[in-house]
Amino acid sequence: MQTELSKTLGVEHAVFGFTPFPAVAAAISRAGGFGVLGAVRYTAPDELKRDLDWIEAHVDGTPYGLDVVMPAKKVEGVTEADVEAMIPESHRQFVKDTLTRYGVPELAEGEASGWRITGWMEQVARTQLDVAFDYPIKLLANALGSPPADVIDRAHEQDVLVAALAGSARHARKHADAGIDIVVAQGYEAGGHTGEIASMVLTPEVVDAVDPLPVLAAGGIGSGRQVAAALALGAQGVWLGSLWLTTTEAELPSPRLIEKLLAAGSGDTVRSRALTGKPARQLRTEWTDAWDDPDGPGALPMPLQGLLVAEAVSRIQTYEVEPLLGTPVGQIVGRMNSQRSVQAVFDDLTRGFEKAVDRVNRIAGRSAEQ
Amino acid sequence: MQTELSKTLGVEHAVFGFTPFPAVAAAISRAGGFGVLGAVRYTAPDELKRDLDWIEAHVDGTPYGLDVVMPAKKVEGVTEADVEAMIPESHRQFVKDTLTRYGVPELAEGEASGWRITGWMEQVARTQLDVAFDYPIKLLANALGSPPADVIDRAHEQDVLVAALAGSARHARKHADAGIDIVVAQGYEAGGHTGEIASMVLTPEVVDAVDPLPVLAAGGIGSGRQVAAALALGAQGVWLGSLWLTTTEAELPSPRLIEKLLAAGSGDTVRSRALTGKPARQLRTEWTDAWDDPDGPGALPMPLQGLLVAEAVSRIQTYEVEPLLGTPVGQIVGRMNSQRSVQAVFDDLTRGFEKAVDRVNRIAGRSAEQ
Repeated sequence: MQTELSKTLGVEHAVFGFTPFPAVAAAISRAGGFGVLGAVRYTAPDELKRDLDWIEAHVDGTPYGLDVVMPAKKVEGVTEADVEAMIPESHRQFVKDTLTRYGVPELAEGEASGWRITGWMEQVARTQLDVAFDYPIKLLANALGSPPADVIDRAHEQDVLVAALAGSARHARKHADAGIDIVVAQGYEAGGHTGEIASMVLTPEVVDAVDPLPVLAAGGIGSGRQVAAALALGAQGVWLGSLWLTTTEAELPSPRLIEKLLAAGSGDTVRSRALTGKPARQLRTEWTDAWDDPDGPGALPMPLQGLLVAEAVSRIQTYEVEPLLGTPVGQIVGRMNSQRSVQAVFDDLTRGFEKAVDRVNRIAGRSAEQ
Repeated sequence: MQTELSKTLGVEHAVFGFTPFPAVAAAISRAGGFGVLGAVRYTAPDELKRDLDWIEAHVDGTPYGLDVVMPAKKVEGVTEADVEAMIPESHRQFVKDTLTRYGVPELAEGEASGWRITGWMEQVARTQLDVAFDYPIKLLANALGSPPADVIDRAHEQDVLVAALAGSARHARKHADAGIDIVVAQGYEAGGHTGEIASMVLTPEVVDAVDPLPVLAAGGIGSGRQVAAALALGAQGVWLGSLWLTTTEAELPSPRLIEKLLAAGSGDTVRSRALTGKPARQLRTEWTDAWDDPDGPGALPMPLQGLLVAEAVSRIQTYEVEPLLGTPVGQIVGRMNSQRSVQAVFDDLTRGFEKAVDRVNRIAGRSAEQ
């Protein structure tokens, strides 16, 4: 499965795997894809350094990349404390009341928060980059708009390609104007932050909007049929995130969460502002329902909501409080029904891709075999 | 573009075109696809008879079908007047106030309502069927659940295949259990009534859920790339509705509406209950905004909402009141940017399909030419 982009990056298959877990990223690269480590959860540079060292030691020389969350708009001189001060007391009370209603225990003293969303601060992302540029990363992706111009320049000086996520053709053109190299077209069905346009419509729109820049299709892809579909739509590769959550290499903090993912159907996700303040697809839970309830206070805008709920989400995850327990994941969760190794998932993708190509050739009246 | 289903139906291309316009349906069948006439707007059997006669005279012997809106649940002994009586006065007042605010004139005495939604009543649909079964239709599609068992039996006695739309795998399995022959998997991005699951995820789920029944992919398809994608996902054909609205053969009642469709982007639709009471994708307008406004009265359930707004929608269409003027249409509206003949649209679809197959073959390392 070779496109110009996969050849440029020196990978066997045009399959890009986004994951917060170093073991998954390394396994994706070893399997012939391109592993991308999500850096958002690393607040301490040492932890990121430790995990990049681990990846270096486990990718057998195959290429990999890093995904940061760097806001497009720079807010000068604003500290986390300033942002905290903008959160209304009534919203804090709503969090407390909801946690109390479900009997969610407090975290023990010094207990680490497993899933804290803090990497959105530009200074955090810049610290991550200072670490990452010491490693031979081949791709730097940004989930929130184009990275600042100096970051793009620095990446290009080090022969690192820059990718940015887009949910509309207009958004993608802005990235292209900013000088990025790859657009990830993130469809409505994707996990995490998404727009309203579904992949079937979005992918070719973005491909045409930024031509000749390469586009990766994200959202709804979990089988070789879907890989073939995305490539037929004009993408130069696929960008998969959700699918790896239930691999054996993933280190989800909660066995109950894994069970929930394995049991969930494609209709069990919701595009909710509960997690970060921007619409992000995730498992629908009584927690997202509480924030989406028109009679509730509603989610605050980014970045307030993320700060407001960070500790609560940690408590829910730590104590595995079933009705509230969720995670960002796309509609493809409906097909994530068993725990398998990254290699097994990858083999399925490539085998399924070949079968889908055979099928389309038969329909087109071309022989499937050559 | 040949699948088992297209061979069974004797058409050259596995492209099914749904349209309320006889001239479009006939042109789709003549172009080598399968035209399906939407019957929902025919309240008078004579009008349907007249239009089916016209189609018979213009399809050059090629096959075509009919789409009805027959509710799955039968409501015995309920008249339109009974349903009218269930509409709250406050909702009627909201319609009046909104029309007044935008200066929408009253219809002249005896003026026909161009777009009235009344075919949802089972007795209307049955009258349509009594007419249609006198014609050599090859397919009967139902937009609202499986048709009643006696209708399926009658269709099968006359060698008419029965199709039903589904927005989830569960829904599709119910259709299969009811004995229908084809499932139309209608993705989130589609025009008209849709569920929440996007085509990329929905199509393969439905294909696997009803295997070996054939599945048509609907939602987001307007180019050969998208046709190739849908077939890669496992569909035995594609079901296109929106794309024909801006063909030269279409008889949309309003030039301004055509302009709006040509100008709209993929982000200019909304899945709203404004039209029928069930979520249906349509152009976003100040009319849909009024019904979707959390501070407004909100849409009534089906079938009340359709009856409530029928006259209002006619007035808006007749007088082309710009800010309120809309129509059901999918996200593919963003690519409907010129008025072309059905044949020209069809040629684009088939050429684009061949190019997409070439592309996927190149990526798969197979030669594009044979």
